[in-house]
Amino acid sequence: MPLTQIFLRGGKPTGYRLAIAESLQKALTDALGVPAEERFQLITEFGKDNFIFDPSYKNISRSQDLVMIVITLKAGRSNELKKSLYQTIVTELGNSPKIRREDVLIVLHENGPADWSFGDGGAQLLD
Amino acid sequence: MPLTQIFLRGGKPTGYRLAIAESLQKALTDALGVPAEERFQLITEFGKDNFIFDPSYKNISRSQDLVMIVITLKAGRSNELKKSLYQTIVTELGNSPKIRREDVLIVLHENGPADWSFGDGGAQLLD
Amino acid sequence: MPLTQIFLRGGKPTGYRLAIAESLQKALTDALGVPAEERFQLITEFGKDNFIFDPSYKNISRSQDLVMIVITLKAGRSNELKKSLYQTIVTELGNSPKIRREDVLIVLHENGPADWSFGDGGAQLLD
Repeated sequence: MPLTQIFLRGGKPTGYRLAIAESLQKALTDALGVPAEERFQLITEFGKDNFIFDPSYKNISRSQDLVMIVITLKAGRSNELKKSLYQTIVTELGNSPKIRREDVLIVLHENGPADWSFGDGGAQLLD
Repeated sequence: MPLTQIFLRGGKPTGYRLAIAESLQKALTDALGVPAEERFQLITEFGKDNFIFDPSYKNISRSQDLVMIVITLKAGRSNELKKSLYQTIVTELGNSPKIRREDVLIVLHENGPADWSFGDGGAQLLD
Repeated sequence: MPLTQIFLRGGKPTGYRLAIAESLQKALTDALGVPAEERFQLITEFGKDNFIFDPSYKNISRSQDLVMIVITLKAGRSNELKKSLYQTIVTELGNSPKIRREDVLIVLHENGPADWSFGDGGAQLLD
């Protein structure tokens, strides 16, 4: 059930963006058990002036390669699972397309099983 | 109170996108009783590489005409009302601009009455 | 911890958009005590056809200068603090870049302390 939004600066090749998407999906599968085919991802590219971030908040050194990731998923994962997800995401993005650990910001939005319709007008997580 | 975000591939005519927005608003009104004038909608168009979806998850056959719809609304609707909303949305989008039922993915985000300011710095759902 | 998304019509100068971002951050700091360096903001510009709003809902007169602001933040602020935030935002945006109070729509999304990773794969609000 995740819907993943990926926000980054424009100018990276298609293969780089695709690698982000693939690594994120792999992390969701490995850390949370999300089926590989439960994949819905939107990538938005920003000009420099529209992509604003603090370069050192929490003593983490961020570059223009920062990726902000917003994942909407059904509520119910424990804090431990979420921590594991974050670690898995930075590891996978570090492998491909080789993003620095400091350049990965993740925000989760939780909702309920009634809040998803994957098509056909159904509420598939309720049925 | 809904804020509706509409995500789709680029390349469709303006009238097509406008029809999506109008049908969605009609569905919110018909299914949930949202006032017709409570209308705030953002449409974002994506290139092929930035719009990633599984073509058959949950045995639903999706095409490049897929529309992903994210609706933020005040909490409190029952599961039955949400199911009715999904059915109404696919019916309306099927009427205009004639989108296949399989090509409609919907995600709801709920928040509270204090979480909306429609202008003037007010919290109109609290007052 | 806020992640702020700023949605507006395209065509404004860079300085105008930057002023929105700066005023919003100042409002978060002044009203909620968010550290100035806790700053993550995304600005998205829309063509006219993709930016749809009612011009008078709740008897508030909106123009094409409308800014829709979506703030994701950790749950726990009282209704009074949220009301203060809305007032502070419209005041700051009224100062710079001089946006009318009627042209500011704000939506909050709350999540939990486990739902943030600011980099390095950590869950910094838990640790």
